[in-house]
Amino acid sequence: MSSATETHLEVGSAGVAEKQYYTFAEPPDTLTLESGAQLGPITLAYETWGRLSVKRDNAVLVLHAFSGDSHAAGFYKHDSPDSKPGWWDSLIGPGKGLDTDKYFVICANILGGCSGSTGPSSVNPETGQPYGLDFPMMTVADIVETQKALLGYLGISSLHTVIGGSVGGMQVLEWCVRYPEMVRSAIPVATTMRHSALAIAFNEVARQAVMSDPRWNKGNYYGGECPDLGLAIARMIGHVTYLSDEAMRRKFGRRLQNKNNLSYGFDVDFMVESYLRYQGSKFVKRFDANSLLYITKAADYFDLVEREPPARSLNDIHGAAVKFLVISYTSDWLYPTYQAKELIQALKRANLDVSFCEIEADAGHDAFLIPDERLGSLVGGFLDGVPRN
Amino acid sequence: MSSATETHLEVGSAGVAEKQYYTFAEPPDTLTLESGAQLGPITLAYETWGRLSVKRDNAVLVLHAFSGDSHAAGFYKHDSPDSKPGWWDSLIGPGKGLDTDKYFVICANILGGCSGSTGPSSVNPETGQPYGLDFPMMTVADIVETQKALLGYLGISSLHTVIGGSVGGMQVLEWCVRYPEMVRSAIPVATTMRHSALAIAFNEVARQAVMSDPRWNKGNYYGGECPDLGLAIARMIGHVTYLSDEAMRRKFGRRLQNKNNLSYGFDVDFMVESYLRYQGSKFVKRFDANSLLYITKAADYFDLVEREPPARSLNDIHGAAVKFLVISYTSDWLYPTYQAKELIQALKRANLDVSFCEIEADAGHDAFLIPDERLGSLVGGFLDGVPRN
Repeated sequence: MSSATETHLEVGSAGVAEKQYYTFAEPPDTLTLESGAQLGPITLAYETWGRLSVKRDNAVLVLHAFSGDSHAAGFYKHDSPDSKPGWWDSLIGPGKGLDTDKYFVICANILGGCSGSTGPSSVNPETGQPYGLDFPMMTVADIVETQKALLGYLGISSLHTVIGGSVGGMQVLEWCVRYPEMVRSAIPVATTMRHSALAIAFNEVARQAVMSDPRWNKGNYYGGECPDLGLAIARMIGHVTYLSDEAMRRKFGRRLQNKNNLSYGFDVDFMVESYLRYQGSKFVKRFDANSLLYITKAADYFDLVEREPPARSLNDIHGAAVKFLVISYTSDWLYPTYQAKELIQALKRANLDVSFCEIEADAGHDAFLIPDERLGSLVGGFLDGVPRN
Repeated sequence: MSSATETHLEVGSAGVAEKQYYTFAEPPDTLTLESGAQLGPITLAYETWGRLSVKRDNAVLVLHAFSGDSHAAGFYKHDSPDSKPGWWDSLIGPGKGLDTDKYFVICANILGGCSGSTGPSSVNPETGQPYGLDFPMMTVADIVETQKALLGYLGISSLHTVIGGSVGGMQVLEWCVRYPEMVRSAIPVATTMRHSALAIAFNEVARQAVMSDPRWNKGNYYGGECPDLGLAIARMIGHVTYLSDEAMRRKFGRRLQNKNNLSYGFDVDFMVESYLRYQGSKFVKRFDANSLLYITKAADYFDLVEREPPARSLNDIHGAAVKFLVISYTSDWLYPTYQAKELIQALKRANLDVSFCEIEADAGHDAFLIPDERLGSLVGGFLDGVPRN
């Protein structure tokens, strides 16, 4: 099954990350998506850290959130001195929660993304042009299927754990219901088993902001001017939901951008306005507006509770050997602790082994991305207790 | 001082509302705004219900929220059978909380609004064209000053109460610090004494949505195509903040608009999406985009705590005879109860008479606009205890 060389499986072991690519579903093959649509070829950009053991029993799959990518930890060789490390660098590395001296860690940019994996900005082989809205709608289950293919390519048939926050946590749960026999443990962080009306509402407003930008042009903007204004609004909406009332009071309060003077105009008065505008303008440089549409829709569609067969649900893995560690944050109002508790109740009803920790933090949903030793300790301790059978 | 006829003071007594207009600050006069800008002439559209007593001691001033208007109760004569009554009809009328058999109730569209009062869509006398962004930035204090002028015109020098929710509640508080000698009682509802970073953040995203619409054209769109797309996005953002997680779960949950079928596209899937799109499209028919910019900015500027003289603050009314009834709602996350409690502490420190009620409701910030007998009972009982001295 494995066509991966040893080279693939060692890269990044010293904390230096390198983006690699795996392409599958090439003609005459395609991947059949949950909607019934056919897609192919499919490329996933991925990075790895640590070394795969000889027994191939130490692999960990890290699943990123909405706007993340494969660069979960370390630096690239070509990084400038002021570059930031990968988005979960505080958790991944030697001696860290996902200890790369012990584990072989893999993270791939998700299907539908725009950081090297196939998505709406990729070239549609049928037309030679970017897909745009011809890209088929994909679900969290489809994202998982592509990750499964990548693991096959890497010669990995069991995972010590699958871990991810937010939309990454949804993928964790989908992994467990689809491939419980491959997953020894699962760590869904700051996530939910079904997207709430509130979360759908924010995503819908973000999508409308993108689609209302005349430059969006029904998704056909590649090679021309991009819908940056709409995408920036969408990102600003996102950032408000990622923070919390407490975090905003602490970070910004009513502090003014320019000393003590109100502008009496529509320029920036308050620091929080400046922060949001900056986040919006920064985002448009690295993210594709259509990817936002597709990925938010996949999140909105996610519902582990009400599923019609053939979609697999928790009932299908009753009593499976997967050990769960569910983590929530006190100030997360996008996926609040009560939703983590609903997940725990559902897992217990399915006779699954569940641990739960609510971390006290005022940073809101973003807390899971902020370096915090408590997350590393929790994850490291939990994984030490998962048998490598 | 009064130039009002008895006619003015009786209209609406039978529940039939009639919009009236008062114009002041006419040449050579102007009103000096808090920013130092001069504005005039100024028209306020207002409506009244009940009769002013001979002693002129039964007047109640109702102050509307961001998107409200003077039409607080009753129907217009020309209303169609399916018309809705005014926005606080559940509170205003014979035998209701603001009992029009006892009180003479007044409500005016605020300065900067677009429902008959002078705002950015009004004609600038200097140019003969709509103001657009030449309209001066106005504050909650400026709004109160124009209401004070209206009361002078109506011959009213004392108010049995000032009452309002949300941005209307800010006006209530501003009335108390500016004219405590005119106000026997005050009922700030679902409001705050300083706009939080979270509330500013949502307003800023809404403003950016409007200003990103190319049809906004720096505010010069009157007579042409209006920035309806941006304004609709802004309204959608607003509506998410007016509801609550609980209310959204109850009203919409994950229910689909079209039976049990996902669209696998970007049309409406979920009822909550349909609701938001509908609210957005409805709003653009009745509201001016520039008014949204000005009024949200006035709300963001509102801060009763950190004020530099000559702006009056709570310190200036230490021990005043105003009786306060502060009302908050359990599920309001825009102006949560903790902010009502901060207000109460500040009022107590100023040695003011304060009562407080937190109403259990899952409807979020919107709860204060939803017919609820508890609000009427609270308000009616409280006002009976306010002496008409």
